[in-house]
Amino acid sequence: MNGAEALLRSLVASGVTTCFANPGTSEMQFVAALDRVPEMRSVLALFEGVATGAADGYGRITGRPATTLLHLGPGLGNGLANLHNARRARTPLVNVVGDHATYHQRFDSPLQSDLWGIAHTVSAWQRSTPRVEDVGADAADAVAASLGPPGRIATLIVPADVTWNEGGEVAAPRQRAPLPLVPPTLVEHTAALLRGRGAAGLVIGGPAMGERGLLAAARVAAATGTKLLCETFPAVHARGAGLPEVEKIAYYGEMCTLQLAGLSHLVLAGARAPVSFFAYPDKPSDPVPPGCAVVELAGAGLDVVAALEALADALGAPAIAGRRHRGRAGRPERPSGRLTPESMALAVGHLLPEGAIVVDESITSGLSVPGTTAGGPRHEWLALAGGSIGQGLPVATGAAVAAPGRRVLSLEADGSAMYTIQSLWTQAREGLDVTTVVLVNRSYAILQLELARVGASGTGEGASAMLDLGHPPLDFVEIARGMGVPSDRATSADELADLLEKSFSEDGPALIEAVFG
Amino acid sequence: MNGAEALLRSLVASGVTTCFANPGTSEMQFVAALDRVPEMRSVLALFEGVATGAADGYGRITGRPATTLLHLGPGLGNGLANLHNARRARTPLVNVVGDHATYHQRFDSPLQSDLWGIAHTVSAWQRSTPRVEDVGADAADAVAASLGPPGRIATLIVPADVTWNEGGEVAAPRQRAPLPLVPPTLVEHTAALLRGRGAAGLVIGGPAMGERGLLAAARVAAATGTKLLCETFPAVHARGAGLPEVEKIAYYGEMCTLQLAGLSHLVLAGARAPVSFFAYPDKPSDPVPPGCAVVELAGAGLDVVAALEALADALGAPAIAGRRHRGRAGRPERPSGRLTPESMALAVGHLLPEGAIVVDESITSGLSVPGTTAGGPRHEWLALAGGSIGQGLPVATGAAVAAPGRRVLSLEADGSAMYTIQSLWTQAREGLDVTTVVLVNRSYAILQLELARVGASGTGEGASAMLDLGHPPLDFVEIARGMGVPSDRATSADELADLLEKSFSEDGPALIEAVFG
Repeated sequence: MNGAEALLRSLVASGVTTCFANPGTSEMQFVAALDRVPEMRSVLALFEGVATGAADGYGRITGRPATTLLHLGPGLGNGLANLHNARRARTPLVNVVGDHATYHQRFDSPLQSDLWGIAHTVSAWQRSTPRVEDVGADAADAVAASLGPPGRIATLIVPADVTWNEGGEVAAPRQRAPLPLVPPTLVEHTAALLRGRGAAGLVIGGPAMGERGLLAAARVAAATGTKLLCETFPAVHARGAGLPEVEKIAYYGEMCTLQLAGLSHLVLAGARAPVSFFAYPDKPSDPVPPGCAVVELAGAGLDVVAALEALADALGAPAIAGRRHRGRAGRPERPSGRLTPESMALAVGHLLPEGAIVVDESITSGLSVPGTTAGGPRHEWLALAGGSIGQGLPVATGAAVAAPGRRVLSLEADGSAMYTIQSLWTQAREGLDVTTVVLVNRSYAILQLELARVGASGTGEGASAMLDLGHPPLDFVEIARGMGVPSDRATSADELADLLEKSFSEDGPALIEAVFG
Repeated sequence: MNGAEALLRSLVASGVTTCFANPGTSEMQFVAALDRVPEMRSVLALFEGVATGAADGYGRITGRPATTLLHLGPGLGNGLANLHNARRARTPLVNVVGDHATYHQRFDSPLQSDLWGIAHTVSAWQRSTPRVEDVGADAADAVAASLGPPGRIATLIVPADVTWNEGGEVAAPRQRAPLPLVPPTLVEHTAALLRGRGAAGLVIGGPAMGERGLLAAARVAAATGTKLLCETFPAVHARGAGLPEVEKIAYYGEMCTLQLAGLSHLVLAGARAPVSFFAYPDKPSDPVPPGCAVVELAGAGLDVVAALEALADALGAPAIAGRRHRGRAGRPERPSGRLTPESMALAVGHLLPEGAIVVDESITSGLSVPGTTAGGPRHEWLALAGGSIGQGLPVATGAAVAAPGRRVLSLEADGSAMYTIQSLWTQAREGLDVTTVVLVNRSYAILQLELARVGASGTGEGASAMLDLGHPPLDFVEIARGMGVPSDRATSADELADLLEKSFSEDGPALIEAVFG
């Protein structure tokens, strides 16, 4: 068996059955081996950032890594921004990156680059495999490393001769240790803090954003009056249908300072301490009030959910029934009239299908959607965990591959959509159930806010032009058709609702360009 | 003056007057300062790979660096592949990358990444500027570093607070030393080799691919019977109208071995020793025959052209008049009938405008175009210097910004086009004179060849699917219209010639989808 086949079979043996690929010459043996290993589903991307973002979406939904297949240093480079996002989302993800043959690297041929260095900037684990006998074992190690806990990026660099040499061996999956528990003494200590004097806050994130974590956190909050907050951009957030709504840590530091005002303790469960996303002149980077003690109950590598449940039990907090949740019952009415960010949000809230996956890269245009969907059916919400725009369409693609039968709603700002627009072709090719709504304001609207916040004086033509996407206007209907995705334009709330309804009732992808009036 | 303005004014003072920008929050002060420094032309890109590739195209044409403006580590990551290409092309290029404020970095907010490490993988020079007083001087140093010689990537990392703090100082341009000359003794030594026994080869590249270098090299070859070759993917190659044609080093090692067979010496002038682009089982990585001595006359950091002229003089080689060049006189006839790679090449050869810039990312489909254009009017040819596809459309964009009044012909393979397709929007926005011809074979055709060359056995459905771009077919006419570029489809040689003629006679960009029949 050659190295490529041993690599593929070892990945499959370790539970990795999906590959998001943009291969080149050095990965051709891997591609050829796909025919001999049908258990691996390989999904072609036209650009590496689509592949890495899709692997992020897949890993978020399944909790298991997909693998990417990337071509040398430049290919990994093209995938780097979405690997950054995956790293921040703590997504398990395995990169397989082809390299020049071991004996070829000394010649520094044109595509040679600092592949190891590029991988190092984003990988928690990385290895290069110079011997074919090791490639199966290295693949199994990569999968184990990616699973953490918490999930992380593992990058396996495979020279071309290792893929074509004979002598590959399939490796068994690595044993996984159970998720480490938080020590009972720490749970007791935290319970004592929350029972004691002074207002406390509880910030949840990561695995605590699922149903069990949310319910346990809500019990803690209800029993003690603790202020419940969650991270700003959760990787996967279970929402709707009786789940408690949780206030998000504000994006801007000074608003977060208001959220935290008066707290004497802040308990973290699966979340990091709040921090302003960016710095601004004369505004705080660290919004935690002076004198507020930050206590970590459970880091993301521990059993965060069990810790929250143990904390609730230690506090004697009663179970919470659906009707006691703060979630609003029911959906909003179907909107009509002008298409605005608000009526768009009502249309989404009115129609969101049961079990949907919402991928949110709507930036400024989507701020009302959480409010209109909280009372609707159960769904999962995937946010821009690492802040690097261009993840929405790829994450939606990977989530749809991971969850056949569920509708993915990709809420996408027009500026952000253009970073990885090639995702649409993969959605068409694979017939994925993704509804993309591109929210058109013809600008980098967030930067218009940011320009003022960094203290830039009244802007003239040159600066404004750098934030303007209207000259020429992008026509997403044509772009989508060019990539094989059926598309249409909505210029009223009624049209948007009609088009959403149509897409939700049909198989396969669709794109709706929502032009605000 | 704040740091952003000092930075901008220092770049302008050092001769950098074009910025290819994809900014974010940390670059907003730079954007605001554009209004106060009108000497800097800022060109917006929708994706960072467009910005870096455009800076490569600009630098190749002008010999001076453009600056990019990129957002943090992920933004630089998105630009990495085309920076790799620019590094291989030895293009002078300055990256300005915004970073979090100096005091904010310790909080590891979501967009924090290993920016320094990412920059390190591709930059010959890099610096981070923590004090506003230094930012002007650092900008001047960055420009000087980028100019080499040879040209290289210089990356200046500027924290946000440095851009908004007052106290910036405009720096004067750094003095440049004259281009170092090759020692006369080395020229004499080389002349003696070429006069002596044994067949010799001369491989030229880099600056030797301009008119003076080509003529000097041709004199050397004509006077001594030396076999004249050039690098496979020159950054800028002057061609047409009486310039000597030069045989390119073959892409595949075994073909290069045939080119070099029987040579006892190989002299390098601005080029590196030949090497196979990739390794393949049982094929040579190093095509230089055993016993063939490789002698470097002039590395890319020296005055390569002067060295070649000195060598020609030392050999007493007579000047070469136009008619003695090997270039074919005249253009081919206008083709008719089926559209094939060959008739496409004839149409281009028939119509290529005087002074055109040809950006070649045509991969397998464009192999005949060099032959049909060699006898036509003078033009410059920009090749895929680093081998990372996705550079063609951005390089064409930057070349057009650099050379107003000249027509840029961007020959682009369909697979490669999709990596940085966002370039089209910038071409439309800036009204650039770029004619893009997308060559549609609906596959990664090069990889079909490579699959066989790496020894992969007969391929089945899984492997074939990874090289197939036809399901669904990409419609570049719609994609281009969606980004504001007029576009049309050619399905015969006649239609292609008509559309080329039309585009060459009009201002602004156009895209032609050439579908081979």
